Amino acid sequence: MKLIIGNKNYSSWSLRPWLALKAFGVSFEEVKLGLFTDNFYSELAKHSTVGKVPVLVDGDTNVWDSLAICEYLNEAYLNHQGWPKDQQQRAQARAFVAEMHSGLFAVRGEMPMNCRAKKKITLSENAEKEVLWIDNTWTALRKQHDSQGDFLFGPFSLIDAFFAPVVFRFNTYGISVSSESQAYIQAILAHPAMQEWLQASIEEEATIEVAEVGESIS
Amino acid sequence: MKLIIGNKNYSSWSLRPWLALKAFGVSFEEVKLGLFTDNFYSELAKHSTVGKVPVLVDGDTNVWDSLAICEYLNEAYLNHQGWPKDQQQRAQARAFVAEMHSGLFAVRGEMPMNCRAKKKITLSENAEKEVLWIDNTWTALRKQHDSQGDFLFGPFSLIDAFFAPVVFRFNTYGISVSSESQAYIQAILAHPAMQEWLQASIEEEATIEVAEVGESIS
Repeated sequence: MKLIIGNKNYSSWSLRPWLALKAFGVSFEEVKLGLFTDNFYSELAKHSTVGKVPVLVDGDTNVWDSLAICEYLNEAYLNHQGWPKDQQQRAQARAFVAEMHSGLFAVRGEMPMNCRAKKKITLSENAEKEVLWIDNTWTALRKQHDSQGDFLFGPFSLIDAFFAPVVFRFNTYGISVSSESQAYIQAILAHPAMQEWLQASIEEEATIEVAEVGESIS
Repeated sequence: MKLIIGNKNYSSWSLRPWLALKAFGVSFEEVKLGLFTDNFYSELAKHSTVGKVPVLVDGDTNVWDSLAICEYLNEAYLNHQGWPKDQQQRAQARAFVAEMHSGLFAVRGEMPMNCRAKKKITLSENAEKEVLWIDNTWTALRKQHDSQGDFLFGPFSLIDAFFAPVVFRFNTYGISVSSESQAYIQAILAHPAMQEWLQASIEEEATIEVAEVGESIS
């Protein structure tokens, strides 16, 4: 099974299924294509009809879109353990992930993922509102589930894979959050797979500072 | 079980889980709140902490977001029959739905759902590209699966619930599509649940012509 991803420093959508695979111990081959390089689209076209990363290639099954990939992995490789076991919690986790996947445009636009950097930023009112929504969400979930583990629903689950790039962003741009959210940020950053991704992003040549262009980067 | 929705004429996100429930024969109570009326947010607050429709209330489980609601229904009420049975097809269906759920902004912005109307429109270049993507997607899926039924993967599945509001839009704005896509549009429009929704949208008082404001309407 191959996961085709973009630059680790910038491609937040690539991080989500990559982290899910690593965190749940599923073996796969990583195929990294340099965003904005000449061969990005030509190489991608060998694996996918969709000109965006990430793409999962599992035999003759070709899945694009980070959320669809995670649902596929949940069924095909994780024995449905990717989401919280409790049905109500699972529904909530999917609802928060759906909001992350389809929204939070101000945060995505103003705070592009740039794992290895530290930057100062002035956020728009919309981005401030989204940051507050994220902080409130993390805080409430951590308060509910902190006896079961360090992540949003206790043990690591797919919702954590979806918020992991936001953790990198909050870390890069020094966003102030509640003590519960700060503890969550530290738990995600300390995850061995996150450390592995971060180290690889540091080792990537800083080719070009990029603005966010759809799922290819954000 | 209650499904809280907005105006049938305009609330395309409400249509998706409503149609899924009806098409799969799951009984539920419909709670319709008038978008942009004084009591929309106050009534919604009784059922949900999220100020958007649709919301599913099933006992003490409260699920918002159309996609999370459909995944919940698939597990809790549809015995996992909401998506295509074949794993590869299921992954593809979820990938197309993820694209619909998180994108197609030009179509959503320029062609707001208005079931009961017929309108002329001039589309932007971006919207034309998205229309072509939709047309190509429908055409390819219908060609692959037409021996199994009239819908995108043969029998009606959750992907059809997600594209149903787009079918209303193409019908309203008279969008030209391939013969396969036209046959798909006719199959969706002929579905008894779609006819029921359309009839109810006609009977709604035309209170206000609205622009699209996030998931509350689109």
